[in-house]
Amino acid sequence: MAYHPRHMKWWGWGDEDAGFDSSAHPGFWPYAKAQLGVEGDDPRALPVPLDAVQLPEAGVNPRFLAELGAALHSGQICSSRHERVVHAYGKGFRDLYRLRRGSAEGAPDLVVYPENEDDVLVVLRAAAHHGVTVIPFGGGSNISGCVERMETQRMAVSLDMRRMRRVLAVDAESFTARAEAGVFGPDLEEQLGAHGMTLGHFPDSFLHSTLGGWIATRSAGMQSDRYGKIEDMVVALRMITPEGVLATRTVPKSSNGIDVNHLCIGSEGTLGVITEATMRVHPRPESRIVPAYLFPEFESGVEAMRECARAECAPSMARLNDPDKTALSLAFKPPSSRMSQAVNKIFKRYLRVRGFGLPRACLMLTAFEGPKSKVAGQMQEVENIYRRFGAVSLGTGSGKSFEATKYDFPHIRDFLLERNVTSDVSETATLWSNILPLYRATLAEIRAAIAESGVPPWAGCHISHTYQTGASVYFTFALKHQQGHEMEQYLRVKRAAQQSFMDHGATLSHHHAVGTEHLPWLAEDISPLGLKAVAALKQGLDPGNVMNPGRLQPARDAFGEWSRIGSSPEAKAEAAALLTRKSRA
Amino acid sequence: MAYHPRHMKWWGWGDEDAGFDSSAHPGFWPYAKAQLGVEGDDPRALPVPLDAVQLPEAGVNPRFLAELGAALHSGQICSSRHERVVHAYGKGFRDLYRLRRGSAEGAPDLVVYPENEDDVLVVLRAAAHHGVTVIPFGGGSNISGCVERMETQRMAVSLDMRRMRRVLAVDAESFTARAEAGVFGPDLEEQLGAHGMTLGHFPDSFLHSTLGGWIATRSAGMQSDRYGKIEDMVVALRMITPEGVLATRTVPKSSNGIDVNHLCIGSEGTLGVITEATMRVHPRPESRIVPAYLFPEFESGVEAMRECARAECAPSMARLNDPDKTALSLAFKPPSSRMSQAVNKIFKRYLRVRGFGLPRACLMLTAFEGPKSKVAGQMQEVENIYRRFGAVSLGTGSGKSFEATKYDFPHIRDFLLERNVTSDVSETATLWSNILPLYRATLAEIRAAIAESGVPPWAGCHISHTYQTGASVYFTFALKHQQGHEMEQYLRVKRAAQQSFMDHGATLSHHHAVGTEHLPWLAEDISPLGLKAVAALKQGLDPGNVMNPGRLQPARDAFGEWSRIGSSPEAKAEAAALLTRKSRA
Repeated sequence: MAYHPRHMKWWGWGDEDAGFDSSAHPGFWPYAKAQLGVEGDDPRALPVPLDAVQLPEAGVNPRFLAELGAALHSGQICSSRHERVVHAYGKGFRDLYRLRRGSAEGAPDLVVYPENEDDVLVVLRAAAHHGVTVIPFGGGSNISGCVERMETQRMAVSLDMRRMRRVLAVDAESFTARAEAGVFGPDLEEQLGAHGMTLGHFPDSFLHSTLGGWIATRSAGMQSDRYGKIEDMVVALRMITPEGVLATRTVPKSSNGIDVNHLCIGSEGTLGVITEATMRVHPRPESRIVPAYLFPEFESGVEAMRECARAECAPSMARLNDPDKTALSLAFKPPSSRMSQAVNKIFKRYLRVRGFGLPRACLMLTAFEGPKSKVAGQMQEVENIYRRFGAVSLGTGSGKSFEATKYDFPHIRDFLLERNVTSDVSETATLWSNILPLYRATLAEIRAAIAESGVPPWAGCHISHTYQTGASVYFTFALKHQQGHEMEQYLRVKRAAQQSFMDHGATLSHHHAVGTEHLPWLAEDISPLGLKAVAALKQGLDPGNVMNPGRLQPARDAFGEWSRIGSSPEAKAEAAALLTRKSRA
Repeated sequence: MAYHPRHMKWWGWGDEDAGFDSSAHPGFWPYAKAQLGVEGDDPRALPVPLDAVQLPEAGVNPRFLAELGAALHSGQICSSRHERVVHAYGKGFRDLYRLRRGSAEGAPDLVVYPENEDDVLVVLRAAAHHGVTVIPFGGGSNISGCVERMETQRMAVSLDMRRMRRVLAVDAESFTARAEAGVFGPDLEEQLGAHGMTLGHFPDSFLHSTLGGWIATRSAGMQSDRYGKIEDMVVALRMITPEGVLATRTVPKSSNGIDVNHLCIGSEGTLGVITEATMRVHPRPESRIVPAYLFPEFESGVEAMRECARAECAPSMARLNDPDKTALSLAFKPPSSRMSQAVNKIFKRYLRVRGFGLPRACLMLTAFEGPKSKVAGQMQEVENIYRRFGAVSLGTGSGKSFEATKYDFPHIRDFLLERNVTSDVSETATLWSNILPLYRATLAEIRAAIAESGVPPWAGCHISHTYQTGASVYFTFALKHQQGHEMEQYLRVKRAAQQSFMDHGATLSHHHAVGTEHLPWLAEDISPLGLKAVAALKQGLDPGNVMNPGRLQPARDAFGEWSRIGSSPEAKAEAAALLTRKSRA
């Protein structure tokens, strides 16, 4: 029997039976309410029933369907309401807001499940031949709008890759593994684990995202400081395009002209479908420790991270929360957690001896993994640096608590949406010398953009994914809904954050991809000629514009796409007005 | 006054006053003679005088020249015999063999020296407008045929970038440096040194190659194990194309679609001219040690290197010579060198105690650099691994001797050519699991190809540039000339080596670029669709095929280019016959 991948709930994050358990975090909602100015408890804004979702009538291209029907078995071709809605969007605010209110304008006409590379070839050739578009679909976990249909003229197929999930070969001598691209994170780790190996790629979306999706979006895992970003792990790959198969050789490095792997990595489904990849893997770490630290303020934490990068001793993971994210973390913890106790104890001393206060303190979560013989020494080296910058150790309690819940954070968006609160993120990367200026400016822009809609702003930031030259800077924001203006509120904040990245020398995203949400800034990020180069590649490998049309090529009216918000006419009009306004200087 | 870059001698490697001093290496030529079957001392084959070089009449495009003349000063435009000959070729065997015999068919019609980005823009626009081709020229040190003119229909300009040589900015906090692309290795290191920084890129060509050349060819330096290959060091760059300026942002990593930096890196001058790059730099190492080791045989040396990669403790440099290259190294040393003494002493003991012999022994040269506090520990960790695989330490004598002469090896080609001996190299990279099979097969192929021309074969190999997944495998070969058949001899060997790389799963080059010498294998390496992708990029950024035409796009008759050998009619005919023959199975 065919393998049936488990879908996430169509209207939110995670498995049907999973969600945010607020009773385990009793401090969270009171903290959020106080911060966001939420009074009382409004009626819950529950998602509409699946039957009530407005789904466009499915487009039908009879010749395409006939060709498909002749080559695939019936279990590979699905057009049910549930399948179409599940494949309509990713899991960003714009996606879930629309779905919960019953709008699935972006739904594909059909969902196809290839089971091998030949199936993919058949679909792409038939699509090219008969004027159908194809949107590759991995886990559907993207929050930048990468799987939403952008073109409605032609019939659109969502190509769900998740039945292609086998690890095909492990070379234990060379530390490489060849795997089909549709494999989910946990499945991949389990198959590699049988060989004593790990890929070492653990993005927040790990439970619900796939190898191919990671590569197509230039994903980063929590431990990228040790294992690299996904583009650093790709040794070779195969990508099926409407023009045929692109395949690279399994060699560690080459000087064979332009690196063809890098034409596929980050292509966001616009050139073809990545069907398999040979990845650099690692022996399973013998040892893992997760100490946490508290820094007297954000600036010294950033300095300490930079110093570790300079001294070439960065932990496998280091995540520095700013004061607001630290406060959120504290509110999130079970009240009796060891960290809280430790924090209380240490902070009393700190407050007394050093004269600085909790409001500026910053929580640093770290992880060290590798051979037993090395891990303790690495931690000691880092701890010595941290201490020079005023940090105190909190032990491993809060680190373990973070470990236990690290894949749960995306559930909070659903919890908040149900309570009429929008939360989302914008993240970027910049040089060490620019982190604090960018941080301060962007935080101010986000808060001002929230305040514009007349509600109290909440915004926080964490630094993670360090490199010798800089790090990722990750902003989280939340705001209470102004009924009827939710989409406008979101767009205003998102735009302010992204424009601030551009204005302050950062990039549109460090690991969330371009999608729809960051597309208006692509030309500014990679230069108009860079955009032209990407378009030239597309023209060469997909001349019929079959693959994920509209991606990576901003329309003339760059923000136009954003006005397709599926909300009330008033909201649409206001959003359109907002979006034609000049950006904040 | 304008800066005038120093040219290498037009007929060989290095400055006019530099060369191979055989008196300092009295053992070398006797060893080579014995190995290569050279008897007696034939008359030296000296290069023809510059005046006798056959130079095609310079093509003239009056409108182009008028536009150039209006925009640049006269000191930027050169058409002298010397300038044209210097810019005709790189420094591979095919280049030097032809030049020494007076053939400069590949010479450009004109040499232009831009002094800033505007100059480059002027030249490229005028070239595109008036149907002229442009070949970017850095140090001219390439040995794969990257700067030889491949098209003769249109006027060709060699664009010598070496007046653009300034380090423009150093960000000491973020460890980045922005520099103009025409800067030579030593000049770059001197300018960075003023800020306490190093790029850490030291290819064999270091003295005579430029930053832009390194990036355009995906160069690797001797210490790439510590500092990375050049593509790992590029943070941002600017490339001028006939369609305008491509520029990327100075950020450590991004998820902004296809990585535009990687469309420029390795483009070998076919898309545009890299004018500047922002590079990751490092604090100058506090400490450096260069111990050498002897392994009982090649296999155990390879195993030890792999084990260091696995244990994440690879030295900054590790270069394992196979038995023949080890013998060459020993022959190369001054007879009273410390290493020879150490080797003799140790080997006597070895031979006695362990019962294995010098003919299989392999020399491993290493370097460790970094903070004082770490270097000794790193060396100890490596040494412990090496010992497990039977290595004995030779101390730092031979390492120092290697350091002192590390940039001199290319001179040997000139010395041998003068003595009617061809020497050249082919290098690749492969997975650890494939290194020994590839090594054995390729060595056999090279030796058989040499023997086919009736002379004794000499071939050796070294392993260097290690990665977690594999390493570079670098073959050196030498053979006595059969008068009148020199080019045929070379082509036969080169083809055998490269075909062996392809047949055994390796890549066409690890760090020497595609050029003319590896072009016949490009489609096999990156797949026909990969080739199509590269062509599409070219079409988008250089629709007039102005930039280095003929590169990265194999002709239908892939080996046709190789028959343009500028030798005797007989040799041409024989080479043509050879090249249409099927490759060795």
